[in-house]
Amino acid sequence: MQRILAQLSYDGAGFHGYQRQVTSRTVQEEFEKGLAKLHKAEHWPSLSSGRTDTGVHGVRHPVQFDTPLSIPKERWPMALSTCIPRDMQVLDVSFVDSDFHARHDAIGKEYCYRLYTSAARDVFRRNYAMHLRDQLDWQAMQTAARYFEGTHDFSSVSSPKTYVENKVRTIYRIEITTDGCDWEFRFVGSGFLYQMVRVLVGTLLKVGRGEWRAEYIPELLAKKDRTEAGITVPGNGLYLMNVFYHEDDLNRCLRGLKNT
Amino acid sequence: MQRILAQLSYDGAGFHGYQRQVTSRTVQEEFEKGLAKLHKAEHWPSLSSGRTDTGVHGVRHPVQFDTPLSIPKERWPMALSTCIPRDMQVLDVSFVDSDFHARHDAIGKEYCYRLYTSAARDVFRRNYAMHLRDQLDWQAMQTAARYFEGTHDFSSVSSPKTYVENKVRTIYRIEITTDGCDWEFRFVGSGFLYQMVRVLVGTLLKVGRGEWRAEYIPELLAKKDRTEAGITVPGNGLYLMNVFYHEDDLNRCLRGLKNT
Repeated sequence: MQRILAQLSYDGAGFHGYQRQVTSRTVQEEFEKGLAKLHKAEHWPSLSSGRTDTGVHGVRHPVQFDTPLSIPKERWPMALSTCIPRDMQVLDVSFVDSDFHARHDAIGKEYCYRLYTSAARDVFRRNYAMHLRDQLDWQAMQTAARYFEGTHDFSSVSSPKTYVENKVRTIYRIEITTDGCDWEFRFVGSGFLYQMVRVLVGTLLKVGRGEWRAEYIPELLAKKDRTEAGITVPGNGLYLMNVFYHEDDLNRCLRGLKNT
Repeated sequence: MQRILAQLSYDGAGFHGYQRQVTSRTVQEEFEKGLAKLHKAEHWPSLSSGRTDTGVHGVRHPVQFDTPLSIPKERWPMALSTCIPRDMQVLDVSFVDSDFHARHDAIGKEYCYRLYTSAARDVFRRNYAMHLRDQLDWQAMQTAARYFEGTHDFSSVSSPKTYVENKVRTIYRIEITTDGCDWEFRFVGSGFLYQMVRVLVGTLLKVGRGEWRAEYIPELLAKKDRTEAGITVPGNGLYLMNVFYHEDDLNRCLRGLKNT
């Protein structure tokens, strides 16, 4: 058997998140149906680097599986893509060791949150970005973002609905870019708690609108109380960009972000 | 009764085109259901500037209707948008004379066709642009486009499945822009025949790939034979951008296009 790590891309609009459910369409279900089809089996298991929520998009979401098929590496994306629906795609695969673990071996992740500010909402972006009417203060949000960077207990900015007990994570970098209308928030960290990116954005927006000062952030983190942070912004603006397994790849990503 | 012209925006991915059908979801059906809801009626008729095919998008698609409601002009978009599905939106409305006719009074239209060239298709654009692996020659296509501009019988580059007998139309301008990967073809004309924009793009692609010379176009038009032109490219890359009722608006659009 060969263990394979596939980079999956999917439009989250048509899925109730990554993880398999009984009644709703999920990425895992559709991907494993594709694997079963390719292997002419009833079912074929896979293991993901993590989950995504309803509406959240995957740009490069790694998923591993074992296979007895001897398909050349460059043929795998096409072989898999023909077995899965049109709103999913396999970008590329790598052959990994048999003890590789897509979740445990991850050393970092990159997320992107997209939103746009305009008087009217844009029907073409309803599934791909959050819509805001407010003007946002880039400088204030960037200052607030600096306080989130580093190693902290992120209890205040993640959902309490989780079995994870250790809420300490490291955010390497938060980068906010805009042309005045389209906004992109990039987060690179060691790992992220449940709904953490969406609460981080909701909290940065409070600062961006001038409701909270950037200097409130250290105080907020110290409270370890989710009810003191901003809202959980909608899942449709969130993109899982990358999961890193090698320091080199993580560092290349960090070097690629603008020095703001 | 007040006659109102509403500018409708819709994501064509979820519709079997504009015109009402018995079994499939259409823009007209959903819009008229919204009008009926707003007017607390069983049914409320509307009249469109024209039709669009399955998958084709509307950026500003004018639709007229008569109403006894006295809603201020600036309130209409919100009043209508709350009665229609999320993949449609009313951008703005104008109050027009009772003898205004959204189809007969149109003096010009603007369409845009979007495609992208890359080795792998992009799952996020599957409903919004055509995917091509080929490299395209911008200069050759622009030269070919010049031959289509002007007043011609466009029988060769439109579907024969139509009751329209006069195939003479005027194309004011075709503009092709690209960053080397994303391509936009803009067409501004007096009017367009059934599937004409999609056959025009299919034919320009033949030239862009180097299969046909640009100088073939006059010959093609003279043949008046659809089978001699390029393919009908998929509807998902096509956007109805504007329908013009005033010379001023049409000229403003033409001035806005780059002089290529």
